[in-house]
Amino acid sequence: MSIRDIAEAFAQLCKDGRHEEAGERFWAESVVSREAMEGPMAVITGRAAVKAKSDWWYANHTVHEVTTEGPFIHGDQFALRFSMDITARESGQRIRATEIGLYTVADGKVVEERFFY
Amino acid sequence: MSIRDIAEAFAQLCKDGRHEEAGERFWAESVVSREAMEGPMAVITGRAAVKAKSDWWYANHTVHEVTTEGPFIHGDQFALRFSMDITARESGQRIRATEIGLYTVADGKVVEERFFY
Repeated sequence: MSIRDIAEAFAQLCKDGRHEEAGERFWAESVVSREAMEGPMAVITGRAAVKAKSDWWYANHTVHEVTTEGPFIHGDQFALRFSMDITARESGQRIRATEIGLYTVADGKVVEERFFY
Repeated sequence: MSIRDIAEAFAQLCKDGRHEEAGERFWAESVVSREAMEGPMAVITGRAAVKAKSDWWYANHTVHEVTTEGPFIHGDQFALRFSMDITARESGQRIRATEIGLYTVADGKVVEERFFY
């Protein structure tokens, strides 16, 4: 699959609300997930740990709506723009936010995801 | 200036339609500008050459509207999303397109800009 094929397939799964399936299908075993924050969630390494982070996130947030725009491609990277309307379950705080996910692909898999906000 | 200060100032100049001033103020002498294409415009190195590329672009396109969203920040990088409504002067083709610019900052200056589309 070309970078465009991978980016389009990943984006389509996100557009269909199947973010977890996008990860399961495309994360490399050694994938690194980077958040723009300090603390234990800042850098998560390895497919199982990244899936656990994703599971934690879904368990702790109610998702009202997420829309995905993209992909935007350059070389071996693609970007997606997410607009989210969510509620953090513990605080009850409703959050509307937009962020950019930047994905680096090698050998047909996502080896790094980096989130900007 | 922090990365957030630089990103906010750069984004504000773009939002005000002052893209060239953003470059003049923040491009490092050694800035590298990368487009997601083949050919001579793919990688342009150095402030003077990047300015010449920018000047070429403005001379060859009529800008009806550009809107800038962001900044989205991660570490020493920030992203902006541009929605453009332009006409290519030579062909007369009107183009509405959205792209992501990813900027890498070092010592208070943009050392790389990379465009995704």
